[in-house]
Amino acid sequence: MNTAIILAGGVGSRMGVDRPKQYLVIDEKPIIVYCLEIFEKHSDIDKIVIVVSDEWKDYVIENVEKYGITKVCGYAPAGRTRQHSIYNGLKCTEANAPETDVVIIHDAARPLVSDKIIKDCIIGAVEDDGAMPVISVKDTIYQSKDGKSIGNLLKRSELFAGQAPESFDFKKYLDIHNSVSDDEIASTAGSSEIAYRHGMKVRLVEGSERNFKITTIEDLETFETIIKG
Amino acid sequence: MNTAIILAGGVGSRMGVDRPKQYLVIDEKPIIVYCLEIFEKHSDIDKIVIVVSDEWKDYVIENVEKYGITKVCGYAPAGRTRQHSIYNGLKCTEANAPETDVVIIHDAARPLVSDKIIKDCIIGAVEDDGAMPVISVKDTIYQSKDGKSIGNLLKRSELFAGQAPESFDFKKYLDIHNSVSDDEIASTAGSSEIAYRHGMKVRLVEGSERNFKITTIEDLETFETIIKG
Repeated sequence: MNTAIILAGGVGSRMGVDRPKQYLVIDEKPIIVYCLEIFEKHSDIDKIVIVVSDEWKDYVIENVEKYGITKVCGYAPAGRTRQHSIYNGLKCTEANAPETDVVIIHDAARPLVSDKIIKDCIIGAVEDDGAMPVISVKDTIYQSKDGKSIGNLLKRSELFAGQAPESFDFKKYLDIHNSVSDDEIASTAGSSEIAYRHGMKVRLVEGSERNFKITTIEDLETFETIIKG
Repeated sequence: MNTAIILAGGVGSRMGVDRPKQYLVIDEKPIIVYCLEIFEKHSDIDKIVIVVSDEWKDYVIENVEKYGITKVCGYAPAGRTRQHSIYNGLKCTEANAPETDVVIIHDAARPLVSDKIIKDCIIGAVEDDGAMPVISVKDTIYQSKDGKSIGNLLKRSELFAGQAPESFDFKKYLDIHNSVSDDEIASTAGSSEIAYRHGMKVRLVEGSERNFKITTIEDLETFETIIKG
């Protein structure tokens, strides 16, 4: 059984608008709903857990009902970091969907993820221990320990920019979170990072430029253009 | 003496328009002219070398005259890679501005570079051997040798995305190009890369989001919005 954990706990916005980006309404529908509908319709997804801050929980529940998202089995509170929110989502999955084999963790603000990426991530988590979509890195990236001068060269062909969703063997991934310190969870920059560090094999699958995270006004305009055809 | 090498040799465009992006006309002025004017007015810049493909050379000369860019001392032909174009610019500098101490290499399609970045780069090349502006990396970057699964974690705090202009001790940088194979020049992904690989100390200076390279239609619109205030 596969459970999607949708991260909607962010409360900030860099856009200078009145609400977190995942709750902005585009073409009469909140962004999070576009995201939920993809997982609702996907035949590989059995259950959905939503991580949401207290102040937006009623709003999310109302929209889940309004748009007929029937796979939702629980709501988890937002944590103080993204990885804490994931941990809350994992605990909620354990409580409400204990037969879960694979969790697939996605950002509510990435509403254009494809069915194929979701499928590839689940296959990766079954065949390896986890999977994440990646795209190539466009910038020339330099490494420097002190931030003052170049300290190492990185081959662009070996660098990949991580996207979401990231999928994992549920039990292994939950066990890691149960065993590590709170500090380690807090300092985790990417959800695959903590998996890899603790010995899980994380497969890279082909991501997509279209699967971007809505962060800026320009992103929002791009999303609106795509949605309105 | 400091010589700017302006790279305008690119002939392609990802935008589906009829000309390379550096020659698109925004608010009645070609993009390359915005870039040239910055170096023309900068008190630390003595000479300018322009790298340009044969087919656009007359157009560039015409605009250099029209907009009173007086520091131009030579035109170099475009090479088959960006680094070959740089090498051509270095040879043109040697021929037409042999007393050059520092070269500062910039993209014609980055027309919003600040005076401060130019100054910082020149100071870096004088005090170290070279300098480049960098900005922080927004993506979570993973390393994989085989492209199939995560092979190494990189600390985001140690990663920097390189911009232009890149500045170098002219003699040292030219000597490297004279001594290495054509293949090494061809496979160089960033102009600081070849410098660092051959023992030059390259300082990282603070870049700017505004100093972006015009690549997409969205970049072009952003530039137009900024120029028109």
